[in-house]
Amino acid sequence: MAKTNPGRFFEDYAVGQVIPHAVPRTLSGGERALYHALYPARHALYSSDAFAAACGLGAAPLDDLIAFHTVFGKTVPDISLNAVANLGYAEGRWHRPVRPGDTLRSASEVIGLKQNSNGKSGVVWVRTRGLDQRGELVLDYVRWVMVRKRDLEAPAPETVVPRLAGVVAAGDLVLPEGLDFTGYDFTLAGEPHRMADYEIGEVIDHVDGVTVEEAEHMQATRLWQNTAKVHFDATFREDGRRLIYGGHVISLARALSFNGLANAQMIVGLNGGAHANPCFAGDTVRAWSEVLDKAETSAPGVGAIRLRLVAVKAGGVPGELRGEDGKYRPEVLLDLDYWALMPV
Amino acid sequence: MAKTNPGRFFEDYAVGQVIPHAVPRTLSGGERALYHALYPARHALYSSDAFAAACGLGAAPLDDLIAFHTVFGKTVPDISLNAVANLGYAEGRWHRPVRPGDTLRSASEVIGLKQNSNGKSGVVWVRTRGLDQRGELVLDYVRWVMVRKRDLEAPAPETVVPRLAGVVAAGDLVLPEGLDFTGYDFTLAGEPHRMADYEIGEVIDHVDGVTVEEAEHMQATRLWQNTAKVHFDATFREDGRRLIYGGHVISLARALSFNGLANAQMIVGLNGGAHANPCFAGDTVRAWSEVLDKAETSAPGVGAIRLRLVAVKAGGVPGELRGEDGKYRPEVLLDLDYWALMPV
Amino acid sequence: MAKTNPGRFFEDYAVGQVIPHAVPRTLSGGERALYHALYPARHALYSSDAFAAACGLGAAPLDDLIAFHTVFGKTVPDISLNAVANLGYAEGRWHRPVRPGDTLRSASEVIGLKQNSNGKSGVVWVRTRGLDQRGELVLDYVRWVMVRKRDLEAPAPETVVPRLAGVVAAGDLVLPEGLDFTGYDFTLAGEPHRMADYEIGEVIDHVDGVTVEEAEHMQATRLWQNTAKVHFDATFREDGRRLIYGGHVISLARALSFNGLANAQMIVGLNGGAHANPCFAGDTVRAWSEVLDKAETSAPGVGAIRLRLVAVKAGGVPGELRGEDGKYRPEVLLDLDYWALMPV
Repeated sequence: MAKTNPGRFFEDYAVGQVIPHAVPRTLSGGERALYHALYPARHALYSSDAFAAACGLGAAPLDDLIAFHTVFGKTVPDISLNAVANLGYAEGRWHRPVRPGDTLRSASEVIGLKQNSNGKSGVVWVRTRGLDQRGELVLDYVRWVMVRKRDLEAPAPETVVPRLAGVVAAGDLVLPEGLDFTGYDFTLAGEPHRMADYEIGEVIDHVDGVTVEEAEHMQATRLWQNTAKVHFDATFREDGRRLIYGGHVISLARALSFNGLANAQMIVGLNGGAHANPCFAGDTVRAWSEVLDKAETSAPGVGAIRLRLVAVKAGGVPGELRGEDGKYRPEVLLDLDYWALMPV
Repeated sequence: MAKTNPGRFFEDYAVGQVIPHAVPRTLSGGERALYHALYPARHALYSSDAFAAACGLGAAPLDDLIAFHTVFGKTVPDISLNAVANLGYAEGRWHRPVRPGDTLRSASEVIGLKQNSNGKSGVVWVRTRGLDQRGELVLDYVRWVMVRKRDLEAPAPETVVPRLAGVVAAGDLVLPEGLDFTGYDFTLAGEPHRMADYEIGEVIDHVDGVTVEEAEHMQATRLWQNTAKVHFDATFREDGRRLIYGGHVISLARALSFNGLANAQMIVGLNGGAHANPCFAGDTVRAWSEVLDKAETSAPGVGAIRLRLVAVKAGGVPGELRGEDGKYRPEVLLDLDYWALMPV
Repeated sequence: MAKTNPGRFFEDYAVGQVIPHAVPRTLSGGERALYHALYPARHALYSSDAFAAACGLGAAPLDDLIAFHTVFGKTVPDISLNAVANLGYAEGRWHRPVRPGDTLRSASEVIGLKQNSNGKSGVVWVRTRGLDQRGELVLDYVRWVMVRKRDLEAPAPETVVPRLAGVVAAGDLVLPEGLDFTGYDFTLAGEPHRMADYEIGEVIDHVDGVTVEEAEHMQATRLWQNTAKVHFDATFREDGRRLIYGGHVISLARALSFNGLANAQMIVGLNGGAHANPCFAGDTVRAWSEVLDKAETSAPGVGAIRLRLVAVKAGGVPGELRGEDGKYRPEVLLDLDYWALMPV
């Protein structure tokens, strides 16, 4: 049994440590097809080589969340196998589109540590970088998780809480090389709304719902080689329920957001995110978005729109995020803050 | 909420209107693999590059129903989002095989309108054309659906009922370029029966059954980017059941028909079809076929066989389609009339 | 009904008979993606083109079990459609890696027959060979199954029980051309353990569990074009349960064995195997391995490790295979004996 991976515990992390994650992964059209089977994904830039080429990108990239999940999945055995909770994301940026044939690997640097006052666990901040087969940066983001201690007697490390940007500045977003929306085909994309049509503060109800099945969230989570037991083993939790990978809810909500945000094509920044409540098979997931900001970019015809994407289960109401106590309402599953590129 | 697609209502259609559908889709080996995972598909021409090449086609095309579902899926947001019922198909022809790498898009022309006497809904006839990235026609067919009115006061349009062929004439079928069955390998194909072995009127029980799961029909339907809520949202119907996309039943039945019709390789014509009763998860689907007609073609060694393909659930009996009242028996799910190409 | 395949019965086999199996299959990145979605597969050599290239193999092959399932699936209509039980495997060898684009077909030679004393069934031994599009041998193995007689009056054939090796000799294993583990990257592979770190007799608990869903095992089994009714039709067995294809359990267990045997990269020999007890949806599958032997090979840095891979359901205990009566314990699903290649 000594040969299996017990995962790291809180006392195993040190600030400055760089952890290379195992099992690089070559992606293909197979992952794209599965993504379309598992999520109601319809953004045209990721669906059609011809559409992507007309936007200056050549063949269609794989969905930005395929890159995210692949990079994230590799971190699980090293970062979150003994995690109690996935607390947040910040400073995420996509640096280049991923295409079929690319091989992704990832590494995480420990950038913060804070033991909890109960002495049983602590918070670990890591900056994860995803690289392709050429060693070029594809994606990076900060994530923090609460991790159990193995040895409650282990001394608390010096507390280091990293200073994180609340929002990725629009000027820091990386624009895919060649991207050009000046000849954007709104008809083929599915909706007529350009960035100018959205107002800051506007709330969009994405209307459609998807009832989640065990086989679907497990297939998705496996596809990203995420190994956390809690997603796959019905005997692991005391209540006999499999917890759905938070990223599955992100992809569901993002795909649902096509209906109303079909032209928010490319995800380029992840400002923050919280998995507000757990999601289980049988839940019917809906989504709404709020326009948080808009910015110009240097690419022709391309604007950046900052969106809050909220996934809810039964009872969720568009625009209602928190209760009077300031806490997330019990129907809220996800609160994600991201930047997308769309025609100005 | 004004930004989401409410779908068109009966009064939004006019004869002669051409509606280009959104979200073109590039297909790959991923879609083929999923098709084989979702349906018990075994026709050799779509399974093996070597077999297809030996039939003069080069690399194996994607299943003809992948082309159909992809083209059809695009029409849903514009044609059937507010449909009460999918009433029929006619005059369907496949014009060229689709291969991995091809990008499909589609457009529909309104060719008929008839308001129902209750004034609440009406029938819309459309001719849908699927095109590839070169703009070449891949598939076209007529479909008619019953669509709700949004405004019951809207005036009824002039009634136009298109005159549709009951059957695509054998001489109008399009033969894939290069197709040649003179060296057809019956052993590799799986059965020894050539077209001459089938008699008009013959009924074939395809024997095998498949019990359908929610995760499977939802994955299939999503893969074709079909967005109709009723397939995905368990809270949408009053009975809490998700209705299975009729095309899922078509593909299940066609795949099951391999057992007895392994050499009916390519679908080239769709004469008609009715989704006789709804299908739900838990149903065990079986299929039987009836030989309706046979015809020669101009391609070497290639004949055209006209088949009635019937899918049934528990209690269905091969050959029994309608009750004494002339209506479909309650176990019948699908009654499809199509042309396939097979060795003479 | 005469056109459908009734399958062969015991009296239809004769020693020396060679049965070519139908429906060749071209594999792609789609099958790889589905394999990763259906099983928690993480062996780096099959996940990353870059990792495989660094091991001298060029682009990543498809998982060796994809080759096995594809070759096996083709045999079902001819060998095991009327099988009562799949009794065993022997003398299995993988001869060359399979890559996206390869087309597999298979044929089986009857090498043994023995009627059971009850006169109702008998054991059939076949040697199955899988070939690629160039006619080169990809995989061969012996399997024996118990098959029903159609006609109980049919005379018993002469009994021929083939003499089978209990183990494939290490010297007979085929090493993939170019394989070289001298520059093996243990960090990317996921574990530091080389063959020298494993002791014969060592038992490894692979820890993780997977609860199996109907939709998953059916998708997997269909993907290999395995047509046995018992896996798909909930009405086929009297108890209304679908029996899970034994190969699904093999792949689940092998994928789970990554945790502790991440460097046992390539499967090259199948010494034996028994599906000890049936597996059903809802079972949570776990796995453990026992090191049975180790051997040198002629490839640089490459050793061969012989492993017993055991899959269990709830109640299974690592290292406990048989009860005091010498029979498999009721929790044991699979007992597989195979050779893998790993860094020495």
